[in-house]
Amino acid sequence: MKIAIQGELGSFSHAAAMKLVPKVAVCACALSRDVFQALANGTVQAAVIPIENSLAGSVTEHLDLLLQYRFFIQRELRLRIEHNLIAGRGTKVGSIHRVLSHPVALEQCRHFFQKHRNIQAVPFYDTAGAVKYVIENSVRDSAAIAGRQAARQYRGKILLRSLEDNKQNFTRFFLISKQRRILAGANNTSVAFSTGNVSGALFKALSVFALREISLSKIESRPVPGRPWEYVFYADLLVGDEPRARKAMAHLAEISDFVKVLGIYPAAA
Amino acid sequence: MKIAIQGELGSFSHAAAMKLVPKVAVCACALSRDVFQALANGTVQAAVIPIENSLAGSVTEHLDLLLQYRFFIQRELRLRIEHNLIAGRGTKVGSIHRVLSHPVALEQCRHFFQKHRNIQAVPFYDTAGAVKYVIENSVRDSAAIAGRQAARQYRGKILLRSLEDNKQNFTRFFLISKQRRILAGANNTSVAFSTGNVSGALFKALSVFALREISLSKIESRPVPGRPWEYVFYADLLVGDEPRARKAMAHLAEISDFVKVLGIYPAAA
Repeated sequence: MKIAIQGELGSFSHAAAMKLVPKVAVCACALSRDVFQALANGTVQAAVIPIENSLAGSVTEHLDLLLQYRFFIQRELRLRIEHNLIAGRGTKVGSIHRVLSHPVALEQCRHFFQKHRNIQAVPFYDTAGAVKYVIENSVRDSAAIAGRQAARQYRGKILLRSLEDNKQNFTRFFLISKQRRILAGANNTSVAFSTGNVSGALFKALSVFALREISLSKIESRPVPGRPWEYVFYADLLVGDEPRARKAMAHLAEISDFVKVLGIYPAAA
Repeated sequence: MKIAIQGELGSFSHAAAMKLVPKVAVCACALSRDVFQALANGTVQAAVIPIENSLAGSVTEHLDLLLQYRFFIQRELRLRIEHNLIAGRGTKVGSIHRVLSHPVALEQCRHFFQKHRNIQAVPFYDTAGAVKYVIENSVRDSAAIAGRQAARQYRGKILLRSLEDNKQNFTRFFLISKQRRILAGANNTSVAFSTGNVSGALFKALSVFALREISLSKIESRPVPGRPWEYVFYADLLVGDEPRARKAMAHLAEISDFVKVLGIYPAAA
C-alpha cells in the first residue's frame, strides 16, 4: 500500500505510517497540499497526517485541508514523540557546535540547550531532513534532533536519547483515504460545522450532543479563510456509527450552515 | 512608555505597538517568553503581542503565556497585514533570485512565487529580520517580504506592494500590562477556563453565557501542557464589566476547575 506523508523519509509521520499500515511504501511530499493532491490524483491509496501534538496543539493546516478535500479518516494513532541527538558515525558530543532541527523540536528541548551553552540551535525545515543533511554532507561539528526512525533511515548514530523536556509529548495522526469506510469498533467521530453567528448558536449546536449524552473529547474553532473573524468548529465525539449519532448529525445540520463528517474510526489505544 | 515586542524592529508587532500607544519606545525581544519576562521584571511597562491571524489562526504560544503570567489585556487592535517586496536601494525586481521571509508570510504569497518561477522562497526567522539581513549585508540578488514598517526601519525600498494572496489578512494584537484596569467603553471579555471532563461540561459552561444572552465571538480549546488530551478553553465574550457578566463568571467558577479573566477591554474598530 502506497501512502503519502509530508516531510522527509525517517520523519515522525514515516514512523506513524509504519505503525498504522504494515508493509507500507511511503511517498514523501514536500508540502501538506502535495500530500492531499497525491491522494486526490490516485498516486497513493492513503495518507498519514499529524493532526495534533499534546504540547504544540493542532496542526491547523491539516484541519483546513480536511475540510477542502473529500477524504475520510480511517484510523488514528497516538505516537510518543522522542527527540534524539543524532550525528554521523565518528562524531562525538564534545565536538558538536550546532544542532539542526525543526523549530518546534528545538523549542521542546530547551533544557538540553541550557545545559550546553556552547551549542547553537539552528532551525531547519524538517527533523528527519536535518539528520539527512548532517549525514549526507558529513558535517562533523553538527548534529540533528529527530526521532529514531531518522537515525535508521540515514544510518546516523543516536548520541543522546530522549532530549525532550516534557515526556508527555504525543502526536495524534490520522490515516485518511477516499473510501467512506467505517472500521469495526469505530467509537470516535470527527465532525466540522459552522454556524452563522457564534453566539447562542454554538450552545445550540452542542445541545445536539449533550441531549443525547454524546461526549465531546475536543472542540476547536478555526477562522474561515477570507471571512475574517468567522469560524468553523472541529469537534471530536466519543460515539461511533449509532442511531443516536446519526440523529445528532441530522439535528446539527438543521441548525448549522454546513456539517461535514470527517471520519468515524476506532479511538487510538 | 516602554513596550516589549517579539521579533525585530520594523515587524508587524512594532507597527501595532505604534498604533496602540503614541510615542512608544519599543524593546525588541528574541523570544515570546522574553517579552513576558521583561514585563514581569518591570523592564517594560507593557507588551504588544499578536494573538490571532484571520488566515493562520491563533498564536497558541501567546495564549499559553497569558495563562501562565498574571497580566491583563488593556486594548486590542486589528492590523491589516500587507506583504511587500523590499530590497536595498539599487536592487531591481529582475535581478532578484531569492526572497527571504517568515514561513507564514511566504506561504501567504503563493501567487507571487507561482508567477516568478525563477525566484526561490527562503524561510527566515522573522519578516523584518529578513529585510534587515538583506539590507545590512547588501545582498544584491535577494529581497525580503515584510510590512511597510520594516522598509522604513532599515531604509529599504518597496519594489512591489501587497503581494499577499488573500487581502482579508488581519492580525489581532493585544496590549497587555500588569494593571487590572478596565478602559471606558470596554465591551469585550477574554476568559480562560477548564472543566474536568469535556463532555457535557462544556455545554454546561456555555449555558452560563447563553442563559444570560452573552454572545461568544470565539472559543478555542488548547491542550494542557503535560496532561495529554486535557484541554483549557479560551473564550471571547461580547460583554464588558456588567453585573450579568460578573454573575456569569461566578457561575462559571462554580462548575469549572479554574477560571481566569484575561482582560476586559474595548473591541477593536
